[in-house]
Amino acid sequence: MSEDLRVARRAFVRTALGALAVGAFAPKAFAQGAAAAQGGVPVTDRIEFKRLAAANRILAHEDVVDAFGHVSVRDPDNPKRYVMARSRSPELVEFSDLIRFEQDGKSLDPENRTPYGERMIHGAIYEARPDVNAVVHNHAYALLPFGLTGRTLEPLVHVASIIGAKIPLWDAQTKFKDTDMLVRTMDQGRDLAATLGKNTCALMRGHGAVVACETLKQAVITAIYLKVDAEVQLQAMAIGTPRKLTDKEVELSTATQFSPLALDRAWEYFCVRAGVEPI
Amino acid sequence: MSEDLRVARRAFVRTALGALAVGAFAPKAFAQGAAAAQGGVPVTDRIEFKRLAAANRILAHEDVVDAFGHVSVRDPDNPKRYVMARSRSPELVEFSDLIRFEQDGKSLDPENRTPYGERMIHGAIYEARPDVNAVVHNHAYALLPFGLTGRTLEPLVHVASIIGAKIPLWDAQTKFKDTDMLVRTMDQGRDLAATLGKNTCALMRGHGAVVACETLKQAVITAIYLKVDAEVQLQAMAIGTPRKLTDKEVELSTATQFSPLALDRAWEYFCVRAGVEPI
Amino acid sequence: MSEDLRVARRAFVRTALGALAVGAFAPKAFAQGAAAAQGGVPVTDRIEFKRLAAANRILAHEDVVDAFGHVSVRDPDNPKRYVMARSRSPELVEFSDLIRFEQDGKSLDPENRTPYGERMIHGAIYEARPDVNAVVHNHAYALLPFGLTGRTLEPLVHVASIIGAKIPLWDAQTKFKDTDMLVRTMDQGRDLAATLGKNTCALMRGHGAVVACETLKQAVITAIYLKVDAEVQLQAMAIGTPRKLTDKEVELSTATQFSPLALDRAWEYFCVRAGVEPI
Amino acid sequence: MSEDLRVARRAFVRTALGALAVGAFAPKAFAQGAAAAQGGVPVTDRIEFKRLAAANRILAHEDVVDAFGHVSVRDPDNPKRYVMARSRSPELVEFSDLIRFEQDGKSLDPENRTPYGERMIHGAIYEARPDVNAVVHNHAYALLPFGLTGRTLEPLVHVASIIGAKIPLWDAQTKFKDTDMLVRTMDQGRDLAATLGKNTCALMRGHGAVVACETLKQAVITAIYLKVDAEVQLQAMAIGTPRKLTDKEVELSTATQFSPLALDRAWEYFCVRAGVEPI
Repeated sequence: MSEDLRVARRAFVRTALGALAVGAFAPKAFAQGAAAAQGGVPVTDRIEFKRLAAANRILAHEDVVDAFGHVSVRDPDNPKRYVMARSRSPELVEFSDLIRFEQDGKSLDPENRTPYGERMIHGAIYEARPDVNAVVHNHAYALLPFGLTGRTLEPLVHVASIIGAKIPLWDAQTKFKDTDMLVRTMDQGRDLAATLGKNTCALMRGHGAVVACETLKQAVITAIYLKVDAEVQLQAMAIGTPRKLTDKEVELSTATQFSPLALDRAWEYFCVRAGVEPI
Repeated sequence: MSEDLRVARRAFVRTALGALAVGAFAPKAFAQGAAAAQGGVPVTDRIEFKRLAAANRILAHEDVVDAFGHVSVRDPDNPKRYVMARSRSPELVEFSDLIRFEQDGKSLDPENRTPYGERMIHGAIYEARPDVNAVVHNHAYALLPFGLTGRTLEPLVHVASIIGAKIPLWDAQTKFKDTDMLVRTMDQGRDLAATLGKNTCALMRGHGAVVACETLKQAVITAIYLKVDAEVQLQAMAIGTPRKLTDKEVELSTATQFSPLALDRAWEYFCVRAGVEPI
Repeated sequence: MSEDLRVARRAFVRTALGALAVGAFAPKAFAQGAAAAQGGVPVTDRIEFKRLAAANRILAHEDVVDAFGHVSVRDPDNPKRYVMARSRSPELVEFSDLIRFEQDGKSLDPENRTPYGERMIHGAIYEARPDVNAVVHNHAYALLPFGLTGRTLEPLVHVASIIGAKIPLWDAQTKFKDTDMLVRTMDQGRDLAATLGKNTCALMRGHGAVVACETLKQAVITAIYLKVDAEVQLQAMAIGTPRKLTDKEVELSTATQFSPLALDRAWEYFCVRAGVEPI
Repeated sequence: MSEDLRVARRAFVRTALGALAVGAFAPKAFAQGAAAAQGGVPVTDRIEFKRLAAANRILAHEDVVDAFGHVSVRDPDNPKRYVMARSRSPELVEFSDLIRFEQDGKSLDPENRTPYGERMIHGAIYEARPDVNAVVHNHAYALLPFGLTGRTLEPLVHVASIIGAKIPLWDAQTKFKDTDMLVRTMDQGRDLAATLGKNTCALMRGHGAVVACETLKQAVITAIYLKVDAEVQLQAMAIGTPRKLTDKEVELSTATQFSPLALDRAWEYFCVRAGVEPI
């Protein structure tokens, strides 16, 4: 099939999938009303949630996530809840896929759709970190060699200062022995959150990473530059011993990179590349 | 030529090629009738075969196959047969390219088109493995350094647990001395199948790999993550000694990754990326 | 969202952003008149400035710049000024984004839009180098391992002879201790310019590079091949000790690569790839 | 500019460039007549020349060539001539860009357009090798580390057997000392041809490679797999000592890879990918 036809085909498929999703739960008002009566809390048309849908697309476009991975925000309507998509690859996530969750992972989806099995990562971090309002979990391949070899990933380049001076490594084996490697219980999530501590990022051996930031824009951009830093460090380690940023450089550079001037320039760039409005 | 014109051109070329293919064998009904009288068994409009055509596109889109490589399914209508495309790069395969084969490689194509020279890989594995219903043969470049250097490829990351704990290496030289490296006889195919044994994947020195799974979705996704795992291992080996998944982690993670929740999420993702319906 | 819809969406977004930019400052003539009265000097419709807008797109398309990075030209109307875009990722820069600056960084933008924080890099180089009329600052990732490890980047391949025989390394730490790593004052810019000296390129530790040439076409193409040379050197160093071009080869090859025959062939190529007219 | 607009823009640019090219030499018939009277020999509408134009696009699409590089065929109308494009990046070459040359490089272009400076590479090889009817010269980056470090590039994978068992290295320094590294005289071309000898490929230190085959399809596909083999060897050398194909494997595999079954499958694949008809 030609690229041309494939693109058109993809549009059809996505549209069809969207129609199916809607159709299966119509009339929506009725379902929501019934579900609300049962505890369902629909996701409203707030800018934070629209931005969350966009964040999914950005992370997919920048190859930070692939078939797997997810991003969430703490619910601005209730800090003991968080919002993320139903179980679906981020590249395909639409606004209508978003669901509210209790911190323990209980779904408040009026439509009771299948959630991500690893949402406990997000709930546990929101529980442990009142300062965090956005979490990304991803499997970016460049990150994996570090956890697999025990080599330390460190911020080497100024745009990646935002990943923080220290990036701890979590290994499911340590406390849970042999598992399927997924963080599917609050117990596992809390263990991961304990390893993350006050840091921005943590690696997960043979699995991926988590990124926890104060805002969604920060979390998305940090996840992108975490991958970039890993790629640079892999290349640098092949020709010598790279010098990392000093702790003070990390601190000063982070303040600059998270200032509106730099953050919004990067956010606009990544939004437009992913074909979403820079909201 | 502009990207724009090139895309349109490609659509024309594919359509024209398709028309030529049809035209050369019209009227189809007559040819099929005649061929059937001679032993031809046309490929019917079953979902398994439509999925097989889609699988070709997915493997090409994810760069698991390039000009060469192929994928087949055991014939659901007759376990002693299998179905795969005529000799054509997977990226270009259409439903109409599919052909049924006897296990020994004899073509049942009513149109008697040229088959893949290496279809014996598939027949020999179906013969040796009653549990296998889908086979992928590919030349993904990231896999090659392992067979070429004798280094062992192992599952390091959880999404790649499905490749299995052990990935044997087959070398045409061992039994057949100097050849053109292709598996073109059942004798060669059986030798490869013997090396594969009960495993999911086997590497082929200086050539590529085979992947054998119970279902087509599993085979396609496994072939994709076999390449991913190799890429990660190459990078990890450049900075240290990577730690592999334990056998129990492989077992538990495989069960999870092949569960409908994970498998279908990945299948949807890869289908939409390749511009095919997630059937 | 499909690729197809995403592309259309992106077109909408860029157009909308453009409309917003214009709308916010209309009527332009009035604003310009008022600003001119206050010291604003608008950017006129000269070919050099159109080429500068194009250069932004080329550098982005070739992955020399990403969210960050910028390119400028010495103002042909006044050698003590230079012209570059307002603070915006190069991939998104339009002709209307261009602003004139005094050498010390003072903006002459009638619309007083936010400039790049690091424009001092450009002003300081124009001040130190009367022979230079175009400057590129970028963060191409392949360059970073060299400054981080202290390994020397050298011209290895003939198309990259134009980067010059010597590429010094500048480190903000040396004179300024811990900073946010950005060159935001003329003091810092002059220190960087001093390190650059009479050379064409300089690396910036943990940050990126600067490229300074006589013409804009030269600067753009040099920035592209600086990245290419780094990529080749990284690969070469992984398998042995690469031999660099002799100083005479660098000199002779540069003359050839900058001759109209070669320069214009490359310029046309990079322009068309980026979808801009080869002006 | 959006991808969408950029694509459309590129189409416009290419079309405009094409119109300019035609316009500048109209009426063509008159110019050809006049030029013929002066020694010009126009390129006729033969399939071999259409295929040559297509070959330019394929090599560019597969990143075998970039801004530089070229491909030619021995003139089927006169073996002491060859045909290639005027000086233009292969990605942009149209049928109308093709020119006939005498073996010594003298142009027979009725329109007297600027030829490639390095066409002597082609003329010298056609002169030395009566068995060769197509030549590719390219700068594929993966090839460069071998010549730069003195490491030997060898055929490791069966699809790359066609590059031949031995790939000599030519260095302009050896006979010509310091130069601009380009092969611009027949003297230099003959020295390169002498190094190439009876082999299919030769590397050029700090520059690129040449590929010489009996047919154009073979030359294009060989150039592609020369790059693939280099990429695999670079990765393999990073984790161990790769084992090369035996000379007999190279011989047997080449015969198979150049058989119509395999060659035409690959040719169709690369043509369609590049958006050209598989002629």
